[in-house]
Amino acid sequence: MSATPNQVLRQAGQRTTEVPLGHGVRIGGSGFVVLAGPCALEGQEQVERTAAAVHHAGAHVLRGGAFKPRTSPYSFQGLGEPGLKLLKDAGHRLRLPVVSEVMDAQQLPVMLDYVDVLQIGARNMQNFSLLRAVAKAGRPVVLKRGFGCTLEEWLLAAEYLLDGGQPNVVLCERGIRSFDNTLRNTLDLAGVAWMKERSHLPVIVDPSHSTGQRSLVTPMALAAAAAGADGLMVEVHPTPEAALCDGPQALTPTLFEGLMQALAPVLAAVGRPLFGQELRRAVGGAR
Amino acid sequence: MSATPNQVLRQAGQRTTEVPLGHGVRIGGSGFVVLAGPCALEGQEQVERTAAAVHHAGAHVLRGGAFKPRTSPYSFQGLGEPGLKLLKDAGHRLRLPVVSEVMDAQQLPVMLDYVDVLQIGARNMQNFSLLRAVAKAGRPVVLKRGFGCTLEEWLLAAEYLLDGGQPNVVLCERGIRSFDNTLRNTLDLAGVAWMKERSHLPVIVDPSHSTGQRSLVTPMALAAAAAGADGLMVEVHPTPEAALCDGPQALTPTLFEGLMQALAPVLAAVGRPLFGQELRRAVGGAR
Amino acid sequence: MSATPNQVLRQAGQRTTEVPLGHGVRIGGSGFVVLAGPCALEGQEQVERTAAAVHHAGAHVLRGGAFKPRTSPYSFQGLGEPGLKLLKDAGHRLRLPVVSEVMDAQQLPVMLDYVDVLQIGARNMQNFSLLRAVAKAGRPVVLKRGFGCTLEEWLLAAEYLLDGGQPNVVLCERGIRSFDNTLRNTLDLAGVAWMKERSHLPVIVDPSHSTGQRSLVTPMALAAAAAGADGLMVEVHPTPEAALCDGPQALTPTLFEGLMQALAPVLAAVGRPLFGQELRRAVGGAR
Amino acid sequence: MSATPNQVLRQAGQRTTEVPLGHGVRIGGSGFVVLAGPCALEGQEQVERTAAAVHHAGAHVLRGGAFKPRTSPYSFQGLGEPGLKLLKDAGHRLRLPVVSEVMDAQQLPVMLDYVDVLQIGARNMQNFSLLRAVAKAGRPVVLKRGFGCTLEEWLLAAEYLLDGGQPNVVLCERGIRSFDNTLRNTLDLAGVAWMKERSHLPVIVDPSHSTGQRSLVTPMALAAAAAGADGLMVEVHPTPEAALCDGPQALTPTLFEGLMQALAPVLAAVGRPLFGQELRRAVGGAR
Repeated sequence: MSATPNQVLRQAGQRTTEVPLGHGVRIGGSGFVVLAGPCALEGQEQVERTAAAVHHAGAHVLRGGAFKPRTSPYSFQGLGEPGLKLLKDAGHRLRLPVVSEVMDAQQLPVMLDYVDVLQIGARNMQNFSLLRAVAKAGRPVVLKRGFGCTLEEWLLAAEYLLDGGQPNVVLCERGIRSFDNTLRNTLDLAGVAWMKERSHLPVIVDPSHSTGQRSLVTPMALAAAAAGADGLMVEVHPTPEAALCDGPQALTPTLFEGLMQALAPVLAAVGRPLFGQELRRAVGGAR
Repeated sequence: MSATPNQVLRQAGQRTTEVPLGHGVRIGGSGFVVLAGPCALEGQEQVERTAAAVHHAGAHVLRGGAFKPRTSPYSFQGLGEPGLKLLKDAGHRLRLPVVSEVMDAQQLPVMLDYVDVLQIGARNMQNFSLLRAVAKAGRPVVLKRGFGCTLEEWLLAAEYLLDGGQPNVVLCERGIRSFDNTLRNTLDLAGVAWMKERSHLPVIVDPSHSTGQRSLVTPMALAAAAAGADGLMVEVHPTPEAALCDGPQALTPTLFEGLMQALAPVLAAVGRPLFGQELRRAVGGAR
Repeated sequence: MSATPNQVLRQAGQRTTEVPLGHGVRIGGSGFVVLAGPCALEGQEQVERTAAAVHHAGAHVLRGGAFKPRTSPYSFQGLGEPGLKLLKDAGHRLRLPVVSEVMDAQQLPVMLDYVDVLQIGARNMQNFSLLRAVAKAGRPVVLKRGFGCTLEEWLLAAEYLLDGGQPNVVLCERGIRSFDNTLRNTLDLAGVAWMKERSHLPVIVDPSHSTGQRSLVTPMALAAAAAGADGLMVEVHPTPEAALCDGPQALTPTLFEGLMQALAPVLAAVGRPLFGQELRRAVGGAR
Repeated sequence: MSATPNQVLRQAGQRTTEVPLGHGVRIGGSGFVVLAGPCALEGQEQVERTAAAVHHAGAHVLRGGAFKPRTSPYSFQGLGEPGLKLLKDAGHRLRLPVVSEVMDAQQLPVMLDYVDVLQIGARNMQNFSLLRAVAKAGRPVVLKRGFGCTLEEWLLAAEYLLDGGQPNVVLCERGIRSFDNTLRNTLDLAGVAWMKERSHLPVIVDPSHSTGQRSLVTPMALAAAAAGADGLMVEVHPTPEAALCDGPQALTPTLFEGLMQALAPVLAAVGRPLFGQELRRAVGGAR
């Protein structure tokens, strides 16, 4: 067997893989899926307010970090298991599947008690030991692209997951590094379109980490939808100015609601409904 | 006076500058403007067929290079003045303004005989002598972003033009370099959204050079429209496989027509008509 | 405590930390230290021939990978523990300390049975769980710079190790990614000089991975020495054309001997002996 | 003829081209050549003091900018012709050839009255009109690498000069852009070593612009010498804190003298004398 990817590649005529995320939510079909929530889980009130807000605005999956990979050992490192419990409880109440980042194999047992979907973060995209362990954990995976990694390396990281036994993988573009540091990262939307051609896996876009700037999140969310992405992962915080992590890029609930309203017509323009609205449309309903 | 830009910056509440491109076409208002044509002008048949096709599909401005900045001295360097004449004739017949790249100040007299809009290419974005000379030439300018230049440097290059006396400047994002060379360049759409906030100048996107791959041109064109760009610059060639320059990224007339058809609903979704359709809409017409 | 580094920073007048690597070898003092060996441990003959050759040429530490972080799941993944045993045996016979990469915390117990120094690879520089676990393992660490990571992030990764309890950290520059992919990576020697100013930790250079091209290894090794690096990590293979990993950048034993001979006068020019030759010099001996 | 370089490529066994720079100074042979002077020519006293200092310390060529390509139109743009006159006078008195940057073809007549060597700056490396004009001007050329350009593009820019009739071209590496903006640019010394293999043209290194930081200039100068560069271009200013351009990277005369003293033994270690010392060595003299 050569060192090139094969299980992740789209064969001629092959449809995008539909990945079940829990509570009936599926990504990769015609429905566009929105994952939203705070960067870091901080406490009960923050989690519940955010969950209620994103659910109300139409998000399909609740995200939130309990184990945070922080550049500095002196930055807030996350609530750990208590955070996961808050996340699960909020998701359970609202019937939203939940996703959270796993940083190492030892965290897997506790993660599996709480989350529907495992996220592998950008800094761990080439942590091959983690990829192998997560592949055996039996849960769908959101695999973020490393900010210093090529499209081909991203494909091969996904190949580790498929080869290890986990077919349900969602790729998430979150920006790469370039010489221009005006924004936090350079969002590679052409890479998303390229990936949609090359792989049968669903691809989503994170307009929050990639730009690092609140006012650019909605334009990039709309651009991602127009470019053919299968979904979005968006950071929302009830009081961004008080966030313990990445406040400048978090949307308020109001701004997130605006994003969702702006998104619907763009999706309609490219022939895709929001997930869950295919049926309503089919039976003549409207959101 | 400090070394920071000021004339190009958007003041609070300031509207985007409307730049007249000729034959009544204006960019920067609500109407979205499409510039299209071949990378290089190659001969009468090629120019006329392309011009007819892009006009038929709804493009507003005809583009084509007569003086080509080529990496190798042994590559096709462009037809020169005879190419400009073909471009002008084709534009005249179809009542389309024409744009072409000027590589140095000595070319300006001949350029001014033929073109409505002067383009400064990516490799010359920081050719400050050229910027000063073009600023005095009295024609609107399309200023491409250098593939190795920051957003701030791009702003300051435009400042040279405004400070030199030319207020009618259109910024064109055409991709930057990053470590990932899977595609020709990395299209920086978040940079476009950032620039729209920061400057009152219109910003367009070139999805052809930035991706270098035909199949990605339409997805990136739609993404640019969704992100808030004021227009597009697209390469079209009647027989891309025979093009003397950049064939792999050129759309056929048929593909370009598909792009224009896909574009209309995305523009509608973000509340912008194609240029020239505001009126028809206002009087009850439809395209 | 702020999120900025502090334990890794060089205070005014502070000397470079001397890190003991085993068998009496110390790095960070006046003596320049050379770590050499194969990219991947492949079998007994390969390990023993390489070890004998690098020892003969004057290397101080034997390196070799048993657990290989490979971009593709279908590439050779390393011999695992049997490889470590070969490495330890070869080092023991020649009285050379040995260094090998640890990819995850679960490998630590077996690693500790065999190696004197733990290496954290470029892809794991921001695997913070691994950094914390390695910090508690009680062995000196070589911390490679991530190819997509800034100098400041590299400092903060080292801070995780010092903050976690391991003061003996050696930083290893191995090239970063840039838009120019002519060579495998872009070796950042100015970053090495910057780091020597900013941190009290010893800094070494890997001219093999950074260039990916055999003929450039010696020039970059000499440049590193002239720039003020404290040592080198060099890949050597008895038959590079048959190597299971990274053959094109491996030196043959003969070429490595040439590197060591060329290195001595450059080190003398910047006032540093090879490690182990300070004493001989002091007592009037010569190599 | 294909679009690949040929006149600049080193044929098997071909020696490096020796480029005459004026006043008997030649670069590309065994002698290492140092070009030094201020970033911008500012006035008589500054030019004369700098010239005397760099001559005293052993530099071979005097550099200084009269036409400055500045990112902002509001930054100091250079003294123009009066600056060139100061440069020529200072060089004439000390019998040092002088080099200065030409920004466009219209400046050539005045430049030719004053300078021995024409410099093409990083921002104009792909200003092909300028390359063609300079190729016909009959003077040796220093061609700086564009900070966003690949090694292959640099080769092809030099090919424009040779193909246009000027065989005496010196390549100057001055740093490229990467995601890490800690330093001004990323100095690509491995690219220098690669270029020495690939081309027969002499290659020099600018440790001033590449690092942007005074304290790193000498380490990078030594590294360049060890890596096989044919010379250096270094910025020196009598009072860097008062410099009108790039003060933070300028060496004082004292620091420059230190650089030259540190350079000699490194050059000796790689078997190269400073230019002009070959003969003294040959007749038994020492500097």
